[in-house]
Amino acid sequence: MSQVSILVFDIFGTVVDWHGSIVRELSAAHPQVDADAFARAWREGYQPAMQRVRSGERAWTRIDELHRGILDEILPRFGLDHLDEDQRARLNRVWHRLDPWPDSVPGLTRLKARFTLCSLSNGNIGLLTNMAKRAGLPWDCVLSAEVFRAYKPDPRVYLGAAEVFDLPPAEVMMVAAHQDDLAAARACGLATAYIERPLEFGAAHVKDVSPDPANTRHARDLLDLAEQLGC
Amino acid sequence: MSQVSILVFDIFGTVVDWHGSIVRELSAAHPQVDADAFARAWREGYQPAMQRVRSGERAWTRIDELHRGILDEILPRFGLDHLDEDQRARLNRVWHRLDPWPDSVPGLTRLKARFTLCSLSNGNIGLLTNMAKRAGLPWDCVLSAEVFRAYKPDPRVYLGAAEVFDLPPAEVMMVAAHQDDLAAARACGLATAYIERPLEFGAAHVKDVSPDPANTRHARDLLDLAEQLGC
Repeated sequence: MSQVSILVFDIFGTVVDWHGSIVRELSAAHPQVDADAFARAWREGYQPAMQRVRSGERAWTRIDELHRGILDEILPRFGLDHLDEDQRARLNRVWHRLDPWPDSVPGLTRLKARFTLCSLSNGNIGLLTNMAKRAGLPWDCVLSAEVFRAYKPDPRVYLGAAEVFDLPPAEVMMVAAHQDDLAAARACGLATAYIERPLEFGAAHVKDVSPDPANTRHARDLLDLAEQLGC
Repeated sequence: MSQVSILVFDIFGTVVDWHGSIVRELSAAHPQVDADAFARAWREGYQPAMQRVRSGERAWTRIDELHRGILDEILPRFGLDHLDEDQRARLNRVWHRLDPWPDSVPGLTRLKARFTLCSLSNGNIGLLTNMAKRAGLPWDCVLSAEVFRAYKPDPRVYLGAAEVFDLPPAEVMMVAAHQDDLAAARACGLATAYIERPLEFGAAHVKDVSPDPANTRHARDLLDLAEQLGC
């Protein structure tokens, strides 16, 4: 553990609250829609869409475009198929405007004093950069599946992050609120830290945040992780 | 001009003083060596090494490795062929430890309030991230030839930067102290800003910094650019 020098972060759910942010924006614009169901439906389309890229059925495609395809699919189901091109494009960019969890900016700021901090998300570079600038996320480097042209949990993403810094995987720690992401990182030799985000899917769908002893660390939030890592 | 929202920066010579930094480090460690000639010889190997990658003669190779190859070639010429592996590896990392010009951090900090700031260098991602962390360069995003697997002046680098942000090239401005870099960016439709760095090659080899009216802006340094752009 003492040798870890780079922390790489999952973003959606781990650093930013996608569910709450989408619910807030959608409720304001379309109060008649079940925003909780809408946010979850949009997110549910995410893994299958990436899977088509992972399997090679679809050529490399950015998340912005995958998000848009899912959005077009779900809009009729929520009575929103009247939205025009501009409204759809704007709504799709909500993923660039996600709000951080309250501990994210102070936690990252403390961690940054001692570690190099990178995003390591399936989100595209432009999305992650726009999000960070708006939310004040203090990345040293924006790494993305787009850099490696592969989506997590493809090993090329985790190993690629270590290779960018010319470091053995054990000197890089993956930080995420998802055990499957961490398991894939661990299989590549990275250290791992689980972050509890019980409200990732909203207060109506509290998530199981049980510890997995295979992780190097288990933290309540990013301030707790900073504490544990002596920052 | 009013529509530019992203500034992308050349790094070596434009934001950091490679010549002065190498001279300082080499003079301290090996006072008997002509550090000015050494720094220039190292840098002179840079374009031919990248050209072998550009031409396809050599597979994609990071700058760290190209720098090391040039270093191994020039060491005997400067009476330093006795350096062992560790010493060579450490010396090669001087490119991660280059000091910014005095105006770089305050200039970038002012520009950052209004624009998204990205590196756009032939340097590799790890090098640029380590450099930024040490020097306090406040990038919103570290973009590198490594992301696009092509070296400037390959159009894929300039067009790739615009594509990352899903913007037309005219909304991106390339900032550099080298007219050939800016000419290539301009040919891709980017706006351009030339930064005078008369001492890039040291006080003994003052560089011509004449304006080229084809550039969108011509600035003395990054504080002057911030002033011109209303930051």
